[in-house]
This record gives sequence, C-alpha cells and structure tokens, in this order.
Amino acid sequence: MTESDLRGPELEELRGEVAETTKAIIGLVAKRIELAKRIGQVKSRDSLPIDNEGVEDALLEDVLAECRSLGLDEQLGTKILGTLLAESKKVQRMQGTPKPKQLITPMVMMAKAKEVERTGRRLIRLDVGEPDFHPPEAVIEAVSGALRAYKTYYTVGRGVPELLTALKGYLARRYGYRDAADDQLSVTPGGRFAVYSALATVASEGDSVVVIEPNWPAYKEGLEYVGARAISVRTTLEEKWEPSPERVKEAIRPNTKAIVLSYPANPTGKVMGKGAFKEIVGTADDLGLTVISDEIYNDYAYAPCPTILECLPRKYILTSSFSKGWSMTGFRVGWSFAPAETSARMLKILGLMITCVPEFVQLGAAKALECEAEVSHNSRVMKERIDATTEELAKIDALELVKPEGSIYAFPQARSETFDSSAFAMDLLEKKGVTVSPGTGFGDYPRCFRISLGQPQQVLTAGVRKIGELLG
Amino acid sequence: MTESDLRGPELEELRGEVAETTKAIIGLVAKRIELAKRIGQVKSRDSLPIDNEGVEDALLEDVLAECRSLGLDEQLGTKILGTLLAESKKVQRMQGTPKPKQLITPMVMMAKAKEVERTGRRLIRLDVGEPDFHPPEAVIEAVSGALRAYKTYYTVGRGVPELLTALKGYLARRYGYRDAADDQLSVTPGGRFAVYSALATVASEGDSVVVIEPNWPAYKEGLEYVGARAISVRTTLEEKWEPSPERVKEAIRPNTKAIVLSYPANPTGKVMGKGAFKEIVGTADDLGLTVISDEIYNDYAYAPCPTILECLPRKYILTSSFSKGWSMTGFRVGWSFAPAETSARMLKILGLMITCVPEFVQLGAAKALECEAEVSHNSRVMKERIDATTEELAKIDALELVKPEGSIYAFPQARSETFDSSAFAMDLLEKKGVTVSPGTGFGDYPRCFRISLGQPQQVLTAGVRKIGELLG
Repeated sequence: MTESDLRGPELEELRGEVAETTKAIIGLVAKRIELAKRIGQVKSRDSLPIDNEGVEDALLEDVLAECRSLGLDEQLGTKILGTLLAESKKVQRMQGTPKPKQLITPMVMMAKAKEVERTGRRLIRLDVGEPDFHPPEAVIEAVSGALRAYKTYYTVGRGVPELLTALKGYLARRYGYRDAADDQLSVTPGGRFAVYSALATVASEGDSVVVIEPNWPAYKEGLEYVGARAISVRTTLEEKWEPSPERVKEAIRPNTKAIVLSYPANPTGKVMGKGAFKEIVGTADDLGLTVISDEIYNDYAYAPCPTILECLPRKYILTSSFSKGWSMTGFRVGWSFAPAETSARMLKILGLMITCVPEFVQLGAAKALECEAEVSHNSRVMKERIDATTEELAKIDALELVKPEGSIYAFPQARSETFDSSAFAMDLLEKKGVTVSPGTGFGDYPRCFRISLGQPQQVLTAGVRKIGELLG
Repeated sequence: MTESDLRGPELEELRGEVAETTKAIIGLVAKRIELAKRIGQVKSRDSLPIDNEGVEDALLEDVLAECRSLGLDEQLGTKILGTLLAESKKVQRMQGTPKPKQLITPMVMMAKAKEVERTGRRLIRLDVGEPDFHPPEAVIEAVSGALRAYKTYYTVGRGVPELLTALKGYLARRYGYRDAADDQLSVTPGGRFAVYSALATVASEGDSVVVIEPNWPAYKEGLEYVGARAISVRTTLEEKWEPSPERVKEAIRPNTKAIVLSYPANPTGKVMGKGAFKEIVGTADDLGLTVISDEIYNDYAYAPCPTILECLPRKYILTSSFSKGWSMTGFRVGWSFAPAETSARMLKILGLMITCVPEFVQLGAAKALECEAEVSHNSRVMKERIDATTEELAKIDALELVKPEGSIYAFPQARSETFDSSAFAMDLLEKKGVTVSPGTGFGDYPRCFRISLGQPQQVLTAGVRKIGELLG
C-alpha cells in the first residue's frame, strides 16, 4: 500500500491550502522587495545610508508582537525578518547607493605584505597579530616525539584524554577552577574555530549578538556567515576604551542571543575592570543570554584582568588558544569551555567540518601547559615592549595613545579628524616598508591603526620612527 | 544634519508599507504553520511519513513560477520555501509522528569503540575509515624538520608556495593536467573541510544537491548544516552499485546546484565507468551545475577510474586529501581545486574559521607528494586485502558482496530482508568485540554494513570470521 492509497481527502485539502498560502507569502515578499527597491532609489537620490538600525528595531518589535499574538515561534519570525532585511539591503544597494569599501583586516594586510615580500623587499611587519617568540622547545620535542610514535591517526573530535586532563589541571592551577569536566571542553583548530563554533552555536539567521568595538574582526565575520547581526557598542580613545555596562545593556535587542567580551582586548590593549565585567555578565545572565568570553590574551595582562571563570553565568562559552601565550599561532590549536550541552553542540560543528585536531599537535598542546617559564618570559618581554613603544609613540605629535594594559598591540589615534588610516597604511607600506593594520578593520576607527608588538624592540622602535617620519 | 531631517514623507510612507507587508507575511506564515500542524496530526494518526518529496517538488515548482511571474529573485523564493518546509517538518514531528533514529555514522561508531577500549577491552576495529599504514618516514622527518626550523607561524589561508607548487607538479605527473594555477588551489584541514567548504560555496538554504547513495555521511551533514537538501540517487547491490546517468538526470530539481560524485566510492568500493562519469558531468555542465568530485580514494582504484580532471565542466570542485593514499589521516590536511572565483569563495570560509593549516603540516604534505613508493605499497597491499577479504566474506552464506573495485572498504549485504545492521553492529561489538559501521550511516541500507580494510590481513580475517560466527 502506498501513501496515496492512504491519503484521505482531508490531507489533500490541507495540502491545497498550504500551496495557496505559500503562493500568497511569495506574493507579499515580492511586494516587499519592490518597496525596498523604491526605498533604495530614494536613499540613492538623497545620499542616505542603507543601514538604519532604528527602522530595523521597530520592524523586529512588530514581528515579535505579531508572533506572540498569533502563537508563532518567535525564532521563526526573527529568521524570516532576517532573510527579508538582508534581501532588502541587497536590493537597495543595487539602486546605486554607495557600496561599503572592502575592509583591510589584519588577514587582508598579511596577504598584501606577503605579496610584497615575495618580490624580495624586506618589510618591518607590524601588522600580524602573532608574537615573534619561539614556541617552547619542550612543545617542539613533544610534537616530534608524538610523530615518531605515530600519533598520526584520527582522534575523537573533543580531544585526546591527555590534553583534556592537562586543560583541567591548567584551569585549576591558573584560576582555581576545579569543577571542569571533560564534556565541557573541546579542542579546536585555533581560537578562531572556537570563536566561530561558539557564535554559530548561540546565534542563527536573524539573531543578534552584542560586541564591543573596536574588536577582532572574526566576531563580525562569524556572525555575518551565520546571518546574524553584530550590534556594536562603540568605545573611544577619549573614554580610555572603557565600555560602560549601561551602554552594553542598552544595546541588547529582543533578538540578542549573546554578548562577546574579550579582555585584554585586541586591538586596544584595554583590560576591563572586574566590577564592570561582572556587571555585564550579570545583565546577560538576568536576560538568559550567553556570555562568550574570548580570553586568548590572558597571559599578557598587566592590570587585574577579569575572567568568566570567576563569575560564571548559566550560559557561557570561554574560548582560548595556545597561539598567543605560548607563541604557537602556527600550531592551530585552541580550546573552549562551556556547559556540557553547549559544548556538545559546538562539537557537532567541529565534527562535521574538521573531524579532529592532529593528535601530535594535541599532545604538544598538553606539553605546553607545563611550560610556565616560557609563558612568563613572553609576558615579561611584552610588558617591556608596551612600555618602550608607548614612550616612542609619545614622541609623535600627530598621534595619541591610551597606554595598553595588556595584549600584544598598541592602537594609536591620529589627532587629525580627517585621517584615513587605510590610505596611511598603504602609504606607509610603499614609502617606508612598514606594515600596520588600519583601524577600520576593527570597527569604525578610520583615525586609528594597530601596531602589533610581535617584533624585537629595535624593530618596533625603527618601525614607530618611520611612522613618525611619514606623519612628521 | 541627521537622516531624519532629510527624510521626506515619501520615505516614511514607503516604510509604513514595508511594516504592514512584513506583518502580513508573518500572518500568512503563522497560518501556514497552523496547517502544517494539522497535517502532522493527520500523518501521526495514519502513520504516514513526514517527508514527501513529491509534495515538496510541487511546492518548489509553484514558488519558482510565482517568482518568475512577479520578477522576484528565484534564489530568495527558494530560500523562503526552504525555511517554511524546515519549520513545517519540525512542527509535524511535534505532533507525534515517529522521530527518525539517531544514525550510527562511522564517527559515532568510533566514539563508541573508543569508549569501550578505554575500559581496557581489546577490539577488532573494522569501523574507522583509515588505513593502518604508517605515514611515509620522509613526511615525519619533514614535519619534524619544519618544527625545528620554526615553521610555526601563520601562513596565508590558501597555503604555502612550496605545497601549492608541489600540488601543481602532482596534478601534472599524476593526471597530465598542466593548467592548474595557484589561485585555483586551496589547502584545507582535511578532505572533510574541503568538502564542507565546497558544499557551502555552491548551496545555501532551500537549495538541493544530488548525491549518490550509499555515500560518506559528511555530504549530507554539510548540506543539512547549510540548510540545503540532499537528493539521493539510490544504487543497489543488485545493480552492482552502478548509478545510471538517466536516474541522476531525473533527480535534478529546479533548485539543484551541484552533483557530488566520489569514485572509488565509500562505502561500496564501486568505481564508476569513465563513460557514465562523463555523461553525468556533461548533464551537469548543460544545466550549469557544479560537479563536486571527491577523489580521496584515487590511489586505491583497481579498475580504470574517472577523474574530473579529464572532463572539466565549467563549474567544478575537486576535493582530495593526504589522508588515505599516504595514510596521513591524523595530519588533517587536504586540498581543493576549482575555478579561481570558486576557490576564492571557499577560501573565505576557511579564512574565517581556521586561518590556515599549520605550516609544518603543509611542508609535510609537500614532501608526501614525493613519496610515490609508499603510496604504491599501500595501494598494492589494499588490493591484496580486498581479494582476501572478498574470499573470506564469500564463505558466509548469510551475506552477499559485490567485490570492491577500489577504496579501502567492503560493503556486504545480508540476504535476510529483515536484517537490522545497527542492532547487528551493537551485538557484534558486545559479543565478539568487533566493530563495523552500519549501512544506515551511509543511506537507507539497513541490510548492509561497512568493513574497513585498514587492518592487517590476519586481523581482517579474524574479524570477518567472527562476523560469520555471529551470523552462522
């Protein structure tokens, strides 16, 4: 007996109605896109920007109210609105409104610099966010040993027991946190994948996530990839890059799923006060939001630095990596810590895309957690560089800087209000052979640029002096 | 001057209409979900399945016709239908229709086996799809050397020049293909990521991709992740796992973006004839579809095996990996080859999630391409195992097998029509300490299971005999 024999007239009738309703939906969508086109024409004529958060917020409120009154899943309403808004913007852009410029993110800058270097020209590279220290010798030995022992087969996605155990020990030693379980941890190919899978687990199309600007572009890239919106809380050099808990609270929308915090911060070197951090985490917890705390620069903190482990809300994801503290960027190994159910969802993404991190790399990472002397050394040297580079930058009248309290960066701002850091970065590369990352890669900061301190001090000093020459 | 000063009544009016239309769309969506709920109740009452491809196809035709008549972007219509169908199924499932069982994919089986092994019990592991050979010694040396030379920093996402050059040389030597350019290649963390980024680049929500069943579950997992549908062309043991080009052509829907081919095939060991392969590629090309050819088992082919390089259509993505031929599963390094524009889109996904593959691993992969003797050895041994295991399986009356023409697997089918390979696999693990992967992990094949030949012959023979004992 096939399905069609069983099918009653009832099912046929319902299906007919579904088809009619579907067609009617498409008809209204077409009407809506037509309206968007006309709005685009008006905006183009009057040189208005495409994005209008106020209008989007009002639509979201409307849609959610409609969902509640009709008993429709709010997540579905949010998603459909997300699809419609994205398409509207696309259509509006085609009406001749100005296209946003391609951002020169640190990755774009790295590719440009490597291109120039391949022509044989030597550059002073202050663009890439990686320390210049060697990875610990013990790690290199451990990885080589693991290779010779043929630790070269698949492992389970979460990570090998040796590394999970070492991570639990690290959390206990470093933070006094003793409650971590294996099923809360996950080993990732770099902090970047930990961040992506965190964002993709908490947010989907039509959702939003609050981020504090300026920030590492990977947050926005990840959110854009899953169709979610980054709501930026802007901080400024004038306010010492301090985000106020009130402004973070105000930024939260009905479709907000998470808040991303990352201190010490890339690119500003800001370390948020523990009080403000806890207040933001408390707000998130009250609203049932997830706090994603990216603590990758925790070994380069020179002021008391908050950690999510000291004030865990119900929903949290801690992401970190061996890249910075241990100077193991090129090993591509990071980790995440989250409630078991969240961790399982993140792991599903890792499993379908990556299978696992190489076992020999995982065993190297486990060894790294024993290398405290190297991490202390790296941290101490970076502190000296922050001090010396801050002094050197202070000699350049055209720039101002809030002295970094951590991280491996300085983020000076030009005093000139018309400074264009993208043009400046290109000029600096061409005329002086020095690379920096323009501020627009980290948010709306055309007057700023990022200097990475991942170079010996004499190189940093030489680079900063060349910056001074070009600006002088 | 702010935007509100400039805003004419025209813009306000249009925005009001947008808000009204949005609300009306949400109203219709709620009505449609209500209908889905009622359909779910009927289906639950009459024990009908949720999925009904005929109904979905008819809806798609309707939506596309409506899009054309209204001048609406078909991709948008397809996407909205995709969202509505997914939500309808979710709602129908909540009405008490039977939930699909969790599939025991090879990855799930691996996790179960590792769990048992951690209790100290020794198993005969015929589940994992990885060769047991050692990776080439020269690769281990190259990776260790690269580590000692501190090749431990970020590289550009695409891959280091040494590996790109080596891959171009490999394509020329192995396939006589000399036209590959750097910007067509991309180095990935394993073939799995190459496959994911290929699928995610060609298909998005509401789209479909044709796959040939049985197949590696990663294709369907990747499609599900991006919200696209896998349209399966079923092949059977009775037809010697041969997919007919006509049936592939018939499977193509108006929202189909690509066809995935992978020969030698996992799990059947089928090698498609070059003629049929070319015919399918030609069909795809005629329709402007992308052919994704996953050629990861190409070194284990014992019949003339097709490659996309011999019949490149306009749109293609070749994915491959060092995992199988070189037995480098745990190095997590693969690659893709596609038109430059497609490759750039794939690379964007890699950049935002991974940054790059470790440089020391990339340099090991470049060295692997010189290790032809090891690949030949692995291939020769695998051929012997296929022969011996086929003979051994032939002694089990309860099973039938089409002798594999390639790959590293055998995929026998129970003669009993009520055989449940998932229950059998669990029984086999418990009673005999042997692991296999149930056929349902690869499609609708409850009577089949996959035996991985990644074990020495005496282990394979012992394992197969235990299978015989349990079935006998």
